[in-house]
Amino acid sequence: MLASRIRRAVEEAVIDTGSTAWLLVSAALVMFMTPGLALFYGGMVRSRSVLNVMMLTFACLAVVGTLWVLYGYSLAFGDDAFGGLIGGLGHSGLRGLHDVAVGPAGQQVPLFAFAAFQLMFAVITVALLVGAVAERIRFWPWIVFVAVWVTLVYFPIAHWIFAVDGFTAPDAVGGWLVNDLKALDFAGGTAVEINSGAAALALAVVVGRRRGWPQHQARPHNLPFVLFGAGLLWFGWFGFNAGSALGATPLAATSFINTMTAGATAVLGWLLVEQFRDGVPTTLGAASGAVAGLVAITPACGYVEPLGAAAIGVAAGVLCALAVTLKHRFGYDDTLDVVAVHGVGGLVGMLLIGVFATKSVNSAGADGLLYGGGLDQLGRQSVAAGATLLYSLVLTFVIAWVIQKTIGFRVAPEAESTGVDEAEHSERAYDFDARPGAHPLTERVHTANSLSTKGT
Amino acid sequence: MLASRIRRAVEEAVIDTGSTAWLLVSAALVMFMTPGLALFYGGMVRSRSVLNVMMLTFACLAVVGTLWVLYGYSLAFGDDAFGGLIGGLGHSGLRGLHDVAVGPAGQQVPLFAFAAFQLMFAVITVALLVGAVAERIRFWPWIVFVAVWVTLVYFPIAHWIFAVDGFTAPDAVGGWLVNDLKALDFAGGTAVEINSGAAALALAVVVGRRRGWPQHQARPHNLPFVLFGAGLLWFGWFGFNAGSALGATPLAATSFINTMTAGATAVLGWLLVEQFRDGVPTTLGAASGAVAGLVAITPACGYVEPLGAAAIGVAAGVLCALAVTLKHRFGYDDTLDVVAVHGVGGLVGMLLIGVFATKSVNSAGADGLLYGGGLDQLGRQSVAAGATLLYSLVLTFVIAWVIQKTIGFRVAPEAESTGVDEAEHSERAYDFDARPGAHPLTERVHTANSLSTKGT
Amino acid sequence: MLASRIRRAVEEAVIDTGSTAWLLVSAALVMFMTPGLALFYGGMVRSRSVLNVMMLTFACLAVVGTLWVLYGYSLAFGDDAFGGLIGGLGHSGLRGLHDVAVGPAGQQVPLFAFAAFQLMFAVITVALLVGAVAERIRFWPWIVFVAVWVTLVYFPIAHWIFAVDGFTAPDAVGGWLVNDLKALDFAGGTAVEINSGAAALALAVVVGRRRGWPQHQARPHNLPFVLFGAGLLWFGWFGFNAGSALGATPLAATSFINTMTAGATAVLGWLLVEQFRDGVPTTLGAASGAVAGLVAITPACGYVEPLGAAAIGVAAGVLCALAVTLKHRFGYDDTLDVVAVHGVGGLVGMLLIGVFATKSVNSAGADGLLYGGGLDQLGRQSVAAGATLLYSLVLTFVIAWVIQKTIGFRVAPEAESTGVDEAEHSERAYDFDARPGAHPLTERVHTANSLSTKGT
Repeated sequence: MLASRIRRAVEEAVIDTGSTAWLLVSAALVMFMTPGLALFYGGMVRSRSVLNVMMLTFACLAVVGTLWVLYGYSLAFGDDAFGGLIGGLGHSGLRGLHDVAVGPAGQQVPLFAFAAFQLMFAVITVALLVGAVAERIRFWPWIVFVAVWVTLVYFPIAHWIFAVDGFTAPDAVGGWLVNDLKALDFAGGTAVEINSGAAALALAVVVGRRRGWPQHQARPHNLPFVLFGAGLLWFGWFGFNAGSALGATPLAATSFINTMTAGATAVLGWLLVEQFRDGVPTTLGAASGAVAGLVAITPACGYVEPLGAAAIGVAAGVLCALAVTLKHRFGYDDTLDVVAVHGVGGLVGMLLIGVFATKSVNSAGADGLLYGGGLDQLGRQSVAAGATLLYSLVLTFVIAWVIQKTIGFRVAPEAESTGVDEAEHSERAYDFDARPGAHPLTERVHTANSLSTKGT
Repeated sequence: MLASRIRRAVEEAVIDTGSTAWLLVSAALVMFMTPGLALFYGGMVRSRSVLNVMMLTFACLAVVGTLWVLYGYSLAFGDDAFGGLIGGLGHSGLRGLHDVAVGPAGQQVPLFAFAAFQLMFAVITVALLVGAVAERIRFWPWIVFVAVWVTLVYFPIAHWIFAVDGFTAPDAVGGWLVNDLKALDFAGGTAVEINSGAAALALAVVVGRRRGWPQHQARPHNLPFVLFGAGLLWFGWFGFNAGSALGATPLAATSFINTMTAGATAVLGWLLVEQFRDGVPTTLGAASGAVAGLVAITPACGYVEPLGAAAIGVAAGVLCALAVTLKHRFGYDDTLDVVAVHGVGGLVGMLLIGVFATKSVNSAGADGLLYGGGLDQLGRQSVAAGATLLYSLVLTFVIAWVIQKTIGFRVAPEAESTGVDEAEHSERAYDFDARPGAHPLTERVHTANSLSTKGT
Repeated sequence: MLASRIRRAVEEAVIDTGSTAWLLVSAALVMFMTPGLALFYGGMVRSRSVLNVMMLTFACLAVVGTLWVLYGYSLAFGDDAFGGLIGGLGHSGLRGLHDVAVGPAGQQVPLFAFAAFQLMFAVITVALLVGAVAERIRFWPWIVFVAVWVTLVYFPIAHWIFAVDGFTAPDAVGGWLVNDLKALDFAGGTAVEINSGAAALALAVVVGRRRGWPQHQARPHNLPFVLFGAGLLWFGWFGFNAGSALGATPLAATSFINTMTAGATAVLGWLLVEQFRDGVPTTLGAASGAVAGLVAITPACGYVEPLGAAAIGVAAGVLCALAVTLKHRFGYDDTLDVVAVHGVGGLVGMLLIGVFATKSVNSAGADGLLYGGGLDQLGRQSVAAGATLLYSLVLTFVIAWVIQKTIGFRVAPEAESTGVDEAEHSERAYDFDARPGAHPLTERVHTANSLSTKGT
């Protein structure tokens, strides 16, 4: 399986420590995005559901972290199985790989650094789906869903796009989106963003609306968490995008500054839409705008100039801000707007590569419409986006439907009213002090109390 | 413009991947300081203003991130214009720079890594000014201020101190503070700290006091945010200071441990002042002390020994703790003490370089008073500090005054009472659950309620 | 003292920038764990104690950060004194070490990077002890305890296990746990985990229970802080464990993925125990499980395969979940379960090295029981664990007892009821807005009020 051709890092000292350092840091940064997402999502729901939302998100670290070692890495990056649809099981348990080096000569990194980095992508992708079904899901069925979904949906798509010929598996013919179709996706516009957006739609439809939605619109219970969470995601995204250069190279630096730029312009784009549409720029909008821009630049960051990144960011900020109304038009309760932000944002990024990509930035890239490349690349991008979208939508629908019809996803109706946190975890998120004198609010209560006592 | 002398990284493979990794990480760390600052500042204000304060801070990422690509980098690091006061527009749009390498031979990094790192400095500097005018500012006028201020104040000063001869712009004669005056400022004591302190004073004076200040002193609404925010700033500061070595060098390690040391001793210094003055050490004091020490070591971290850093930290902790009372004496409402912490702390650090610097640590440095260098360096430091302070104070006053007199900075008086969050963003920060049985406090309310009902 | 044999990094350019970058990042990550721990601990206590708990934790950065420069580094890593029990004072003030390089040839790093990294270990170890005595401790006596404890307990144990022959002190014969006993402890299972667990037990016993415990069980006041804090600790732990490779090597990558794996499986282990024992998986359990797994893999991460890490994680998750009931059986108020998580988790990790270690992963390691190594290594691990446990338990008991009997640790009984935050810091953690119309809860109060007024 692992042919003798693979390079053993320790024996030959081929490791580039600078690139290894950057990849390890990037893996840590992407891991940190999941707790950040837990805050971001947790702040957006009601205080009676925040723990459940954070738990569903956090648990993805546990489930995917375990499966990755057992077979996940192997399915995503092993030698082809099923005609390249997915990797084989030859790397199960990650055995014997601790001293293997991967990557181009002179910039090689330990395979385990690459494996750790890629693991974090799998974790955050399924964690994103929590946003589609927040406030109504039981814990253990969610765990089952996470395990099945990463296995049948994420690992295959990751194999299509991230398993570059000869990089980790010498005999791979997989990675068809990148190797055969020649679609460009630097850091996961397909496997992470469009995939999560499409799956979120299927999941929201199958699981159904929260009780009372859309008549009752719950307000976010902790907007400081939301804005800080978005800032933390932004921070982690530098690892996500610039780490995808898989080395501390000029291309990593280009991806880094493009990531920053698109996040910045997207915030402005979203807030301007809010200002014109609603008359006021909101915290929720600033946070969502940042994420939308970062989503859209994810596939493009290694192929465009900073001015291209700025344009992609504005486009994502504006279009995603408009797309959040779709769920009301079509009546699906995608609670925290995964479809509008990750689905639409991912599509914007994948397609605009066909417009703004330039070989001057990355010779392994392509020239888009604006750089004289015609419609060719745009076509390839559309096929890659469409294939991902379709595969994810259909498979997720089936998986979710089976779970819904068998063990069931949803909490009991009364638990939805009284709060999933108590029903599922016997916990309440907050317990602020209410002893006499501790709090102006309590003082008011006591005033009320004594007044009423007098009244009596 | 970009002479053929500049090195193309990709072609010549001159990049030091270790230094590049460190610079990219440092850029990410400094970026993370801005969301950290949003928490730090947000926790210090009332819960009715927290979102606005966080938004004003967060928006600096968006505005400065956009302008930096368009022309900011070019003004700060392009070839000289206006006799070296500022850079030219030759690098506008950051076009054609993706494969340029900068830095000394053997330790070169991609120019885009340097550009990303420096961008984060511009962001956090203007974000610091939010503290001077918190709880009374309209969102869009602030956006205008941010754009004008970074352009006219930050970019020029950054050019004076960070644009080292030949580093990024081969024909630069700029960087006069460092190249001509030979002042020492390792990581931004002038451009970031004294600059923000002076600008904060001008801004607070022009914008005016909050209604009711100083008769009513608002209490911080979320001190855990404040202390955690300070911890996060400390974390990011390692990128800020040790990243300013622009490479993974022994000097970076020296700056790192000096940064840690000064933060540590400053906390002790501040808390001791509180203990003796107020009889009690506070959370707010611990958080402020850490920031004061980190501010003061910023210019000095690459020029002093750890024991010198310890002394600078203590001095900053004590002096800044004393300086927070100045606003009451002089009657300006510098709401979150930007003047006392960043202004005074920055001055302490810049001046004490003249005392504690030693060439044994950094041969590009100088020997201060304690190391036999006499008063020479102290003089240079004073001139650099004074020039920055004066330029920033005057320019900021003018910019703020023009905005105040034209579009106006402040929210309506009634909005200040009911809360800027609702007035400016139609949002409330928190919505804690109040359903029956959810909360001991609510139970009290219901007791009151039923008592009163009985009363009826 | 520092023999001429030590290498001067600057002169000879022996620094590996990639390893230096990784070590500096790791130091920053471990530093960030302390504010993360402050959130983790702070969320677990009542809202009237959160500031005190966060302050006691945060202050460890200040105290240990100061002592480290003065003499701490020297005691831990200087040439032997007292027959190798501790280092000498030759490196006091860290003078003259700024250009010294340490580490194996080709992978050398600045000594100051190593010193900064190791400093953060000392900080977090003593900070962990806050969990054993939360909600009843005065600030300044705690500061005294921290200073004495790191000096007499932490620095010596760090010398035993981290001061490898010839690494930092050419003439060292210290580091007996590793050099003589040949025990394996990659990242601090002894000095950090078992040490803090044993010390927590001694401290909890000496300081005594909170008033009303165990009749009254206080609920965590902010579980989102707890879960996010655990996520942050997990993030920082990559620096802690993979940074302990002291270079950006394949071994760092192995440690990284092992760390992730054990954290993941431990969450599942803990939640399954909760499900079977209590019928429900909790947020507190998920957070605690992650920490338990990360604790247990700390000594083992550089010696085992990923499947071994998975097994160690499960074991730690299950055993620590069971161990949290011990404090009720034996009646000591280890408030936040430092004994059960760090003590038991550390023992699990140290001992299971004797089972799962394999030289195929690390030739400097050993073969454990499962890899044909017999009971030999298990014996060495037991001795190292036992020696650390005993030394820490006895010394901590004595130190705590002396402080308790002289200046006293505890707040006044009434302060414990009204809250340590107000008694010790004159602060309240939160001040949520209570003006009319600001909050549904307030609206209720006003309803109650008007009802009662009507009643009158």
